[in-house]
Amino acid sequence: MILEHVRPLGAAPVDVHVEEGRIARLLPSARPGPAALLLPGLVEGHCHLDKTLWGLPWWVNEVGPTRMDRIENEKRVRRRIGMDAAREGRALAEAHLAAGTTRLRSHVDVDEESRLSHVEKLLGLREAMAGRMEIQLVAFPQSGILRTPGVREWLDEALRLGCDAVGGIDPSLIDRDPVRHLDAVFGLAQKHARPVDIHLHEPGELGAFALELIAERTRALGMGGRVVVSHGFALGDLAGPRADALMALLAEAGVALCTSAPPSRAVPPLKRARELGLIVFAGNDNIRDTWNPANAPDMLARAEMVALKYDLRRDADLALAFETVSGAGALGCGFAEYGLAPGCRADLVLVEASCLAEAVVTRRPPKLVVSGGRVVARDGALARG
Amino acid sequence: MILEHVRPLGAAPVDVHVEEGRIARLLPSARPGPAALLLPGLVEGHCHLDKTLWGLPWWVNEVGPTRMDRIENEKRVRRRIGMDAAREGRALAEAHLAAGTTRLRSHVDVDEESRLSHVEKLLGLREAMAGRMEIQLVAFPQSGILRTPGVREWLDEALRLGCDAVGGIDPSLIDRDPVRHLDAVFGLAQKHARPVDIHLHEPGELGAFALELIAERTRALGMGGRVVVSHGFALGDLAGPRADALMALLAEAGVALCTSAPPSRAVPPLKRARELGLIVFAGNDNIRDTWNPANAPDMLARAEMVALKYDLRRDADLALAFETVSGAGALGCGFAEYGLAPGCRADLVLVEASCLAEAVVTRRPPKLVVSGGRVVARDGALARG
Repeated sequence: MILEHVRPLGAAPVDVHVEEGRIARLLPSARPGPAALLLPGLVEGHCHLDKTLWGLPWWVNEVGPTRMDRIENEKRVRRRIGMDAAREGRALAEAHLAAGTTRLRSHVDVDEESRLSHVEKLLGLREAMAGRMEIQLVAFPQSGILRTPGVREWLDEALRLGCDAVGGIDPSLIDRDPVRHLDAVFGLAQKHARPVDIHLHEPGELGAFALELIAERTRALGMGGRVVVSHGFALGDLAGPRADALMALLAEAGVALCTSAPPSRAVPPLKRARELGLIVFAGNDNIRDTWNPANAPDMLARAEMVALKYDLRRDADLALAFETVSGAGALGCGFAEYGLAPGCRADLVLVEASCLAEAVVTRRPPKLVVSGGRVVARDGALARG
Repeated sequence: MILEHVRPLGAAPVDVHVEEGRIARLLPSARPGPAALLLPGLVEGHCHLDKTLWGLPWWVNEVGPTRMDRIENEKRVRRRIGMDAAREGRALAEAHLAAGTTRLRSHVDVDEESRLSHVEKLLGLREAMAGRMEIQLVAFPQSGILRTPGVREWLDEALRLGCDAVGGIDPSLIDRDPVRHLDAVFGLAQKHARPVDIHLHEPGELGAFALELIAERTRALGMGGRVVVSHGFALGDLAGPRADALMALLAEAGVALCTSAPPSRAVPPLKRARELGLIVFAGNDNIRDTWNPANAPDMLARAEMVALKYDLRRDADLALAFETVSGAGALGCGFAEYGLAPGCRADLVLVEASCLAEAVVTRRPPKLVVSGGRVVARDGALARG
């Protein structure tokens, strides 16, 4: 396959030669005339394929305001309306693919309700999507680990079955025992030699304390480059010098940050984090689910939200927003062979735009999406066959 | 014209009878089967038709970070790339119309560069769009009034020429004289019997002082219901009790608030403001211009941003977000004969959705847009003829 006359990230036009699913070489294009913008396959760094209602009839949300309200509501609703994590998860993953996402990290609930059922369904989905989309699954103790007998063992089994990483959540506020929660998470990571991705919504100094505990464990276990903190809202709450010190600690330990750039909440400072050496990437988090009806399987839209959240307006700054849904996501999640250089997997997205900034704010459906050297979508719709 | 079998705001299906451009009556629909959602024409409460680059080739943004950088840059760019406020303004207004916006308030720059040229162009556009879209123009002293000789006189002339309202901006930070700036604005409003809409970005207690001065003048001049503060960021900065006292003062004086719900900035608290009797409505502010490349002429997308900004997730709360781009916008801007009741102007939008919440988060292009009883757009594209 040759993609003729395309501009990689807005640079001068090239022809991209693809061989055996990889980029073989980029040769200068001789053809005159306008060329489409070439992007690497986009990276969804944080979503919940097993929670989404994507493709189902509208569900009326009357949930209470707390995190626990949402956790308990979800369990009730799931039974009542017959949600199927494989079916809705696939619908969402395919919508993502049609919009240019070729690598995706999903958390998958492991709790007393779901036990291993979501894990099994999403492992099946990961297999079914293989070759079109690289999916990572994080075994995620949505309802805590310590407070429910059995969860630690189900997480252990989820990793044995093939989950790519182990998750955690608000170690003080959910399990009410930060040290033992994190020791359980990192213990499982060590046992199975898997990376870690922890949901940390805890605010202010409580969240800061959790960040310190996570950095300590990452360093002590030599897990630098294999630990992600998702959200990390505490870094948005604390005054500059305190947040700086924490971010320096995380950078030194090799802990990356994932943000959904939510409009309603203070978030870690993106530019300062990058200056301090932190990898910061983006994910949608909830998409059309019982937690939140909003958001969309479209990483260019998420990049625009990053731009709006961090007030990025100059073209050079919008390229930073794009980085959070591409290169930084691949680094943070450990997706290999990523990018537009020879040798990289041929995950290629063609967009009608003159530059990255235009691609981000116009969010046009890609003209073409190629995954592993194969055409998987055209004009925002999946290619058949 | 009869719109058959539609659900007004999600209620039971009706047939809407339109006579002479108005809603004549709504009769229960006997037909079985699914019905589209009927919305009133959407309201864009705050935009800048004379600033947009909509329809032009991509312009690379390298502007500095301050408000003054943006003001001065805009003047230079406008000359260099040959922007035409009538042409780009029309492109943006028509894109808005295709997405269901039938009433729109635009600010229009009056400064030493533009003098009355933008006003004249947008008055022409207002006339050209009449019957399809009701446009209000606010004569807007983007660069201040007192600091530039002539601006007060141009504003006076803009109102004489037919601008619908008089604007103002950050009375301490731009003109550095809050009392005389506001006296100039309210003086012009009194002279021409026009309403007021003031851009107030000033933070914290400085913005609070301006709000007090605005409330005092509104009350003293009996202008309740005819004064809008756009942005009002100070109300997002101040602690609950102080913000509450200010909002009660504004409500009592009859000052409404307009917000763009920017993800990067604290904003007035929506639910609390409503409880205190304030009208709060939404606008996009900058759309694809030299100030900000982001945002889109789509009020359902703006409603979703309001929902995300205020963390509105329940269906009942998403209906509040919808209110900010419909009824509250009409009340705040004074658009008359608005709504879905008999006698209202037949500005009707049909969307494929089961309810308001679904319409907001799916943001599908309207199946049909009717303005003043006439079909003006179908499936997201303008109707010809």
